[in-house]
Amino acid sequence: MADERSFLVIDLGGTRVRAASAACMTLRLTHRREEPTEIEGGPDGVIAQMVRLGRSVLEESGEAARVGVSALGPLDSRSGVVYSPPNLPGWKMVPLAARLEQALGLPTTIVNDANAAALGEFYAGSGRGHRNMVYFTISTGIGGGVIADGRLLEGSCGMGGELGHMTIDRHGPICNCGNVGCLEVLASGTSIARRFNERLSAGERSIVSEWTVGRPATAADVSRGAQLRDPLASAIFTDAAECIGVGVVNAIHVFNPELVVLGGGVAQAPGLFDIVRSMVERYAQPAPRRAARIVPAELRGDEGLIGAAAVAREQDKHSKSGIL
Amino acid sequence: MADERSFLVIDLGGTRVRAASAACMTLRLTHRREEPTEIEGGPDGVIAQMVRLGRSVLEESGEAARVGVSALGPLDSRSGVVYSPPNLPGWKMVPLAARLEQALGLPTTIVNDANAAALGEFYAGSGRGHRNMVYFTISTGIGGGVIADGRLLEGSCGMGGELGHMTIDRHGPICNCGNVGCLEVLASGTSIARRFNERLSAGERSIVSEWTVGRPATAADVSRGAQLRDPLASAIFTDAAECIGVGVVNAIHVFNPELVVLGGGVAQAPGLFDIVRSMVERYAQPAPRRAARIVPAELRGDEGLIGAAAVAREQDKHSKSGIL
Repeated sequence: MADERSFLVIDLGGTRVRAASAACMTLRLTHRREEPTEIEGGPDGVIAQMVRLGRSVLEESGEAARVGVSALGPLDSRSGVVYSPPNLPGWKMVPLAARLEQALGLPTTIVNDANAAALGEFYAGSGRGHRNMVYFTISTGIGGGVIADGRLLEGSCGMGGELGHMTIDRHGPICNCGNVGCLEVLASGTSIARRFNERLSAGERSIVSEWTVGRPATAADVSRGAQLRDPLASAIFTDAAECIGVGVVNAIHVFNPELVVLGGGVAQAPGLFDIVRSMVERYAQPAPRRAARIVPAELRGDEGLIGAAAVAREQDKHSKSGIL
Repeated sequence: MADERSFLVIDLGGTRVRAASAACMTLRLTHRREEPTEIEGGPDGVIAQMVRLGRSVLEESGEAARVGVSALGPLDSRSGVVYSPPNLPGWKMVPLAARLEQALGLPTTIVNDANAAALGEFYAGSGRGHRNMVYFTISTGIGGGVIADGRLLEGSCGMGGELGHMTIDRHGPICNCGNVGCLEVLASGTSIARRFNERLSAGERSIVSEWTVGRPATAADVSRGAQLRDPLASAIFTDAAECIGVGVVNAIHVFNPELVVLGGGVAQAPGLFDIVRSMVERYAQPAPRRAARIVPAELRGDEGLIGAAAVAREQDKHSKSGIL
C-alpha cells in the first residue's frame, strides 16, 4: 500500500471532540471517534479526553507519524499555546501541543478551528484545484481562513485570517473582542438574534413571535421570518447579509482570490448568497470581482479533522526537509 | 565577481519614469536613469520612453537576464496587462509586459506599484529580516502590499493587497473605485484636502486660509493647520488618522504580521503615527497586537525599482526550476 503512513488527527470543538486517523498522502479519514466535549473538566479534563480518544484511534489504526489538532482559538500555532477561548471555560494559556505531545509521545501541531476548516475545504471540499481561496465560517461567531498561492496564511503566530474581526463600520457597536464594528458583531448568528430580540423588546412586532413563545428568537427563527416576508425579520436578516457582502468585497480586494467559500449555519440561510452576490456585483472592483466565485462550503463536519491532517502533513514535510 | 548577472528594472509612475540595473542576488541598483513621465504621449509614447531609458541602461550595464517593471495599477501581473490607471490617461488594457518584451527582447514581469514598494521595503527597507509584513502607502491614494511568510501576496491575478479599498465605514461616502466607505475615500491625501475644503466652503473657518489664499488647501496644509492646533484642521486630520488606524487594526487581525509599514507623504505628517498606534492599542486583539510593530517606510524613491528587481528574481527562479 503506497500510503500506509498516517497521522492522528483531533478536532476540539466547544460541543464535540472528534478524532480519527488520516492517511498522510490522501488525508482520507478512518477510525473515527466522537464524543461531547467534557468542558466542565477544564483543560485537564478535556486534554485527558483528547488523549483517551486519540489512544483509542491509535489502537486500531496502528502507529501514527504525528498528531494534527484543530482547536478553538485564539491560539498560537507556533508555540502550541491556547489562549482563552470563550467557549472553553477555565482555559488560559494552556500549552496544548506540548501536553498532547507528552501524553501521546508524538510530535503535535495545532491550528485554530477556522484555519483548519479553510484547509479542509481547500484540500477536500469546494476549494479543490484552486490556489487562492478565502473561507468565512458564519455561525455563532464569524471566523476565517485564507489560502494564498496554495498555502495557509498563518501570520507570525498562526492568528492570520481573523476575517470576523475586520471593522466594516467604524461607527458601529463594540464587538466582544473589544474592536468596533467588526463583521462578527454585525452579522454572526448571535448578532442576528440579539439585534432582532432587542427590536422586539423595544416594542416592534413580528410574525416570529408566534412560534417563539417564552424564549428568545434565534438566527434560524429570524431567517425563517425573513422567508415569510416578515418586515422586521427581513430587515435584520438583509442587513446582516449585506454586512457579510461587505466582508466578502473586502476579502476580494485584499486577497484577489479565485474562490470565496461561505460555511457555517448562517451561510445556509435561504437568500443569503443572493444578497452577498449582489453586494459584490455592486461594490467590488471589476477585475478582481470577475476572478472570484462565491460558493458554499461542501464539508459537513470533517473539515476540522482534514485541516488538522493538512497541517500535520505540512509539518511533516518541513521536518523531513530539515527546515524545522 | 559572484553576482555579475543583472536585471533591467523600470519604475513607471504618474510623474516619473525611472530605470536602473539591479544585481540579481543583492538587488543593488546601478546605472540609474530618471525622466518626467511623458504621459501626454499615451501608451505608445510612454512605452517608447521606457524602452529608450531601458536601452540606455543596458548600453552601460551590459546584458540583463530579464526585465522587472513596477507600474501604476490596476494591472494583471499574470497576463502583464495594464487596465486603466487613473493617472495614465489614454491607457486601457495595454499589454505592457508583452510590448516591452518585444521591444527589449527580454522576458518581462510587471507588478503594481504598491506591491513593488512593499517588496522594496521588505528586501531593502524596514521589512528586512521579517517574514510577515503589511505595507500601506498613504499618498494621493492609498495602496497596499502584503508579504505573507516571506512571499508577496499576489492573489489570482496579481491584484492582492488592495488595502486602500477595504470598506471601514459601510455607511460612508462612495469611493472613486465604486465601493462604499473605503479607507482611501476617508483618509488619502486627496480625501483629507477635499473634506477640509468642503467644510471651508460650507462657511467654517480655519487658520489654514491665511496661507492658502486663492487656492484650495492640500493635505499638507491641513496637517500644518493641525500642528498649529487649528480646530477644523485638527478634526479633519485626526479623523483621517483614526481611519488609517482602523485600517491597520484590520490588517493586524487579517494578516497577523510582525510589521506594519506606513509609507507615502501622508504617513510622514507629524502626529499620524501616535494616533494610529493609539487606535491599535485600543482596538486590536492583544496577541496579534503584541506581535506587530508599526514603523515608517525607510526607502525614499528606490522602493519601486527594488521591488521590480525582486519580482524579476522570483520569476528567474521559477523559470530555472522549470515551474513556469
